[in-house]
Amino acid sequence: AYKMAIEEPLKLDTLAERDQQLKKAQGVTDVSPMRLRMEKFAKEQQKAIVQALEEVDGTRFRVDEWQRKEGGGGITCVLQDGKVFEKAGVGVSVVYGTLPKPAILKMRANHKNIADENNIPDSLEFFAAGISLIVHPKNPMAPTVHLNYRYFETANPDGSSGAWWFGGGCDLTPSYLFEEDAVQFHRSLKDVCDKHDPGYYPRFKKWCDEYFYNKHRAEARGIGGIFFDDLDERVADREKLFAFAQDCLKSFVPTYVPIVHRRKDMPFTEKQKEWQQIRRGKYVEFNLVHDRGTAFGLNTPGARVESILMSLPLTATWKYMYEPEPGSEEAKLVDVLQHPREWV
Amino acid sequence: AYKMAIEEPLKLDTLAERDQQLKKAQGVTDVSPMRLRMEKFAKEQQKAIVQALEEVDGTRFRVDEWQRKEGGGGITCVLQDGKVFEKAGVGVSVVYGTLPKPAILKMRANHKNIADENNIPDSLEFFAAGISLIVHPKNPMAPTVHLNYRYFETANPDGSSGAWWFGGGCDLTPSYLFEEDAVQFHRSLKDVCDKHDPGYYPRFKKWCDEYFYNKHRAEARGIGGIFFDDLDERVADREKLFAFAQDCLKSFVPTYVPIVHRRKDMPFTEKQKEWQQIRRGKYVEFNLVHDRGTAFGLNTPGARVESILMSLPLTATWKYMYEPEPGSEEAKLVDVLQHPREWV
Repeated sequence: AYKMAIEEPLKLDTLAERDQQLKKAQGVTDVSPMRLRMEKFAKEQQKAIVQALEEVDGTRFRVDEWQRKEGGGGITCVLQDGKVFEKAGVGVSVVYGTLPKPAILKMRANHKNIADENNIPDSLEFFAAGISLIVHPKNPMAPTVHLNYRYFETANPDGSSGAWWFGGGCDLTPSYLFEEDAVQFHRSLKDVCDKHDPGYYPRFKKWCDEYFYNKHRAEARGIGGIFFDDLDERVADREKLFAFAQDCLKSFVPTYVPIVHRRKDMPFTEKQKEWQQIRRGKYVEFNLVHDRGTAFGLNTPGARVESILMSLPLTATWKYMYEPEPGSEEAKLVDVLQHPREWV
Repeated sequence: AYKMAIEEPLKLDTLAERDQQLKKAQGVTDVSPMRLRMEKFAKEQQKAIVQALEEVDGTRFRVDEWQRKEGGGGITCVLQDGKVFEKAGVGVSVVYGTLPKPAILKMRANHKNIADENNIPDSLEFFAAGISLIVHPKNPMAPTVHLNYRYFETANPDGSSGAWWFGGGCDLTPSYLFEEDAVQFHRSLKDVCDKHDPGYYPRFKKWCDEYFYNKHRAEARGIGGIFFDDLDERVADREKLFAFAQDCLKSFVPTYVPIVHRRKDMPFTEKQKEWQQIRRGKYVEFNLVHDRGTAFGLNTPGARVESILMSLPLTATWKYMYEPEPGSEEAKLVDVLQHPREWV
């Protein structure tokens, strides 16, 4: 052993290597670094959600485990052209990377403790882990849903934990508006939020309406939900915020699955299917033109593009100057997208 | 008349108003400002191209004439779900606007004469006129084509003409590669270029391969053509560059229409149609994520979004991890997109 140690000293130069070593030696427990706990929780929930959606559809997900050569990796689960779902993707990704100085300076705007103002390093290691989900059902009466919860942390030059924050949210995008669904969806998110802080839901609901705004169309992507970012020690301590993110994530299946069950076998016309396809086109526009998460993903070196763009629907349509008839169900949806409502 | 002149003095404060007045008084001739000549030529060619495509399809275009309340306007012609074309759009747009100081500073990188280094104004009036075209045929053997030719000019604070330049190009995007089409398309563009300058084609062909590169997919959008921008007095005088842009534009119908005639009635399988739909998805990705023209359009105040996004196909598909079989015709296309070729 002594000889080994001399000939092959342990090289734990990077955060990725240190975390890898720690996981092997001790597993992941409540006293592990938040990085490992978030990764573990995201992967557990991914399994649970995939199983729940498989039960609804009766079709198995394809599961791809992948490594990122720059550090990290992930698991991408996709169900395509199923009985209930046109496309459903549930992905976990873990990224170990390096922030260049311009990125550090940019992040300092929101996170002062990322680096000392008088001593900004040329680069910093960072960690990001998150779960992303998108479900596009076949039936135009069943809404698309999107969810993302993520944890971000930087390492100080000495290897200690630097700045950290949580972000995420969950939002609903119907082609046809069922107020019952909208109310139930928002109610469920509000209940989760209220358990942690009565100020969360109003703040994160508004943030969601603002974030998922398809600016060039002057309408929201969907009927909202919650969205938050940069939640750090200024908001609550790390354990509390982790508990909040966990509760949000765990609420997904009991919130969304009942909505799908109500809608998946409703009758629909060819014209209603076409309207869904037109709404899908707008969804693509938002994701590719405005979504910062997609842009961040596509710009990350070594990004797995198919895991990022699993969010795009199986099919979409663009019809020039398509306008719903005044007073129609289609027009009713557009009106809500143009004038976001308080649902609870 | 005297009374009128006192009570309602002519207000020709803006470039748009002065041009409007000039057009009314004198029409547009070879001695008119380039702004008016470019607009007139673009509109003439739009008519000619629309007529030629209507003859191929047997369907009429819808014609929308529109005004831009900030100055300018355009004509958008769209043929949707025709016999030969899934979607064809031919648009002319004329924009009179104001460049804020940051935009002036940015443009100075390429156009020193936009303003004196020591006396950069807070804003400058500008004019932009262009014709854009996109044709997505139904038959997967018939290639998509795109074209854009435009003229840009700034006004000095005293109203005189400031910096000016031409930009544009034309490129082909097949789902299946027919070398014969690729060679004929490039040959035709090279012939037009060579008539004006033997250096143009090699330079603009390379520029096209670089510009229409779908970076996150690590492949070209299509099999290229020509692309150029910022062509000003450093390249040739204004008359010569206008003549070049005119010849390029006039070459479109005789270049593309024979290709469509060869391909439009070829037999194809469902699987080949699906491949076309997957390629359409990549086309959407390029246009929404990378195309500077689309981004510029969507960010222009008062933009007519439906005229900009007429470039999107009628339908598109995204299949997770879809890979063509090695050695197949589909793989052959992807290989060419990954390794642009010299066709002539």
